[in-house]
Amino acid sequence: MSQVRCFISAVEAQAPFFVGLDLGGTNIKVGVVDDQGRPLSWLSVPTEAEKGPEDASARMGEAVKRAIFEADIEPSAIARVGLGSPGTMDIPAGMLVEPVNLKGWDHFPIRDRVSHYCGLPVAFANDGAAAAYGEFWIGAGREFHSLVLFTLGTGIGCGIIIGDLSIDGENSHGAECGHLIINDAEDARVCGCGQSGHLEAYASATAVIKCAQEALDAGRPTSLPDRLAEGKELSPKLLAQEAEAGDRLSLEIILEVARYMGIGIVNLLHTIDPNCVLLGGAMTFGGNETELGRRFLTRIKEEVNRRAFALLAERITIDFATLGGDAGYLGAAGIARVEHMRK
Amino acid sequence: MSQVRCFISAVEAQAPFFVGLDLGGTNIKVGVVDDQGRPLSWLSVPTEAEKGPEDASARMGEAVKRAIFEADIEPSAIARVGLGSPGTMDIPAGMLVEPVNLKGWDHFPIRDRVSHYCGLPVAFANDGAAAAYGEFWIGAGREFHSLVLFTLGTGIGCGIIIGDLSIDGENSHGAECGHLIINDAEDARVCGCGQSGHLEAYASATAVIKCAQEALDAGRPTSLPDRLAEGKELSPKLLAQEAEAGDRLSLEIILEVARYMGIGIVNLLHTIDPNCVLLGGAMTFGGNETELGRRFLTRIKEEVNRRAFALLAERITIDFATLGGDAGYLGAAGIARVEHMRK
Repeated sequence: MSQVRCFISAVEAQAPFFVGLDLGGTNIKVGVVDDQGRPLSWLSVPTEAEKGPEDASARMGEAVKRAIFEADIEPSAIARVGLGSPGTMDIPAGMLVEPVNLKGWDHFPIRDRVSHYCGLPVAFANDGAAAAYGEFWIGAGREFHSLVLFTLGTGIGCGIIIGDLSIDGENSHGAECGHLIINDAEDARVCGCGQSGHLEAYASATAVIKCAQEALDAGRPTSLPDRLAEGKELSPKLLAQEAEAGDRLSLEIILEVARYMGIGIVNLLHTIDPNCVLLGGAMTFGGNETELGRRFLTRIKEEVNRRAFALLAERITIDFATLGGDAGYLGAAGIARVEHMRK
Repeated sequence: MSQVRCFISAVEAQAPFFVGLDLGGTNIKVGVVDDQGRPLSWLSVPTEAEKGPEDASARMGEAVKRAIFEADIEPSAIARVGLGSPGTMDIPAGMLVEPVNLKGWDHFPIRDRVSHYCGLPVAFANDGAAAAYGEFWIGAGREFHSLVLFTLGTGIGCGIIIGDLSIDGENSHGAECGHLIINDAEDARVCGCGQSGHLEAYASATAVIKCAQEALDAGRPTSLPDRLAEGKELSPKLLAQEAEAGDRLSLEIILEVARYMGIGIVNLLHTIDPNCVLLGGAMTFGGNETELGRRFLTRIKEEVNRRAFALLAERITIDFATLGGDAGYLGAAGIARVEHMRK
């Protein structure tokens, strides 16, 4: 998945400008973009979550200033900063509540602290919504009025954009679509959240590893044990390599993930009926650039064609996201822009 | 479920006025409401679907005129008419597409034909969305910013309102939440639409009758055979009577519907995160006014408490709708009002 590394100069850029911040458990990405979503600068700094949220807020403030300096524009030309953050959170209050991947950052007023350190107004968003807005604004969804982005990784992130509206929910828990119940049975697979039968329990990296381990325990024929004996780790990446090398079990597990994603997408079509569903994140098997990625997408579409209302199956665009790891900071800048225009 | 039969006079009413039309397979309901959603008049005429959509459009035009006459206001005081209609439909185009309950009405430009016959601009909406908007505007959801209404009957209707926005979808298939997949198994129950594993296959009147028949076929102990021998029809109403009279099987089937509705509601909480979920329609077992209705609601809430994110389970309001069969025409008038205000 290509990252955006094609920057425009301050001379070409169109004011007003926005800064996007993408706060992750490991890294914080920051960049300045112009009014058309074109990046002028980009940098990444370690989150160092263990130092706590006040320290990180100070470093985010510094990083914003550095990104503005590198973009070679006046700080006064920045209209607003957007901050995309993992949940749980309270978006209207600008608070982190109990962020799973940022231990000890509970109940922290991150929006106002980052604003304090960078000296600019900050728009606050869920990271899934920010990534979805990035794809909607300038990525694979830019031609569409509405979209759903699924980010497939250890868990399943999601963002829903309808027009310029992000479906954040009344309690900042909108678009938690990894936690859609797709199997109501009592013995359904258990999700990372502790509940059972969720989409994420069937179609995340965690689910892939569990399925592979179960198949290994059952002694199914596969090349995986040879790789594990070589010291490799059981992961979607390993399964992808083995599937590409002809291992049928690995391919079967990957296509089963696709089938479940198809079911999840049908549920979104029958609730939101968007123009477009995009798939991003680490577990997209190389996307459109690999045979395996294309097979993964084809299997998803087959399941959608089989199970969605015919009109919706015919009209929906399902594809890979194109902004890769840059979707978050670009989308956060886009959400800052929407907030700026509304005020 | 109480119908709105408390009309205000033209003297008390507040302009502008709106007319709501609720087109059903059997009857068409029409009423004039004021700017605060208070009804001034109401009438119902048979749909006579077999006479075709042009004939019905003409009678809808006449019914609008009669409702205005009965409201005792000048036709010129009506700002707009709202028409709620069953799908499938194309809302922006004002077209019926293939309405399941209106045989032979396919591809009919109903919005413009009704507008022609009543001489007023017409706003066009899905009947599920209209009912949801009615509850949102002046019913059980009037205190909230967002809601989901499930209408439980032969099938499951749904409407999603966020602020003044109805989630109609890009292809007029938004909020088809009866067709959420909650059981991905190949042997899952079959829905009225032909697909399997849908919420509607587990929690509609049709599902109740199927479950009861299966239990009868399996020879499970129940008072139902006695009632059938008396010539009564197997229906949710019969099961409700028998459950109230102490039949354990009937109660079990009704509470199983509640459990499935709980699962459906969890999926909406994890996608939309609304303030409020309401249950309306014929299959609500008397609602808050009966012991059985209250048990039904309690069972739904138990399942939501068990399966939703704790914060959402704690904050969501789940209750019965209050407008009964009037939700559709009142909500259609409300949607007309929103369209009027936007233009």
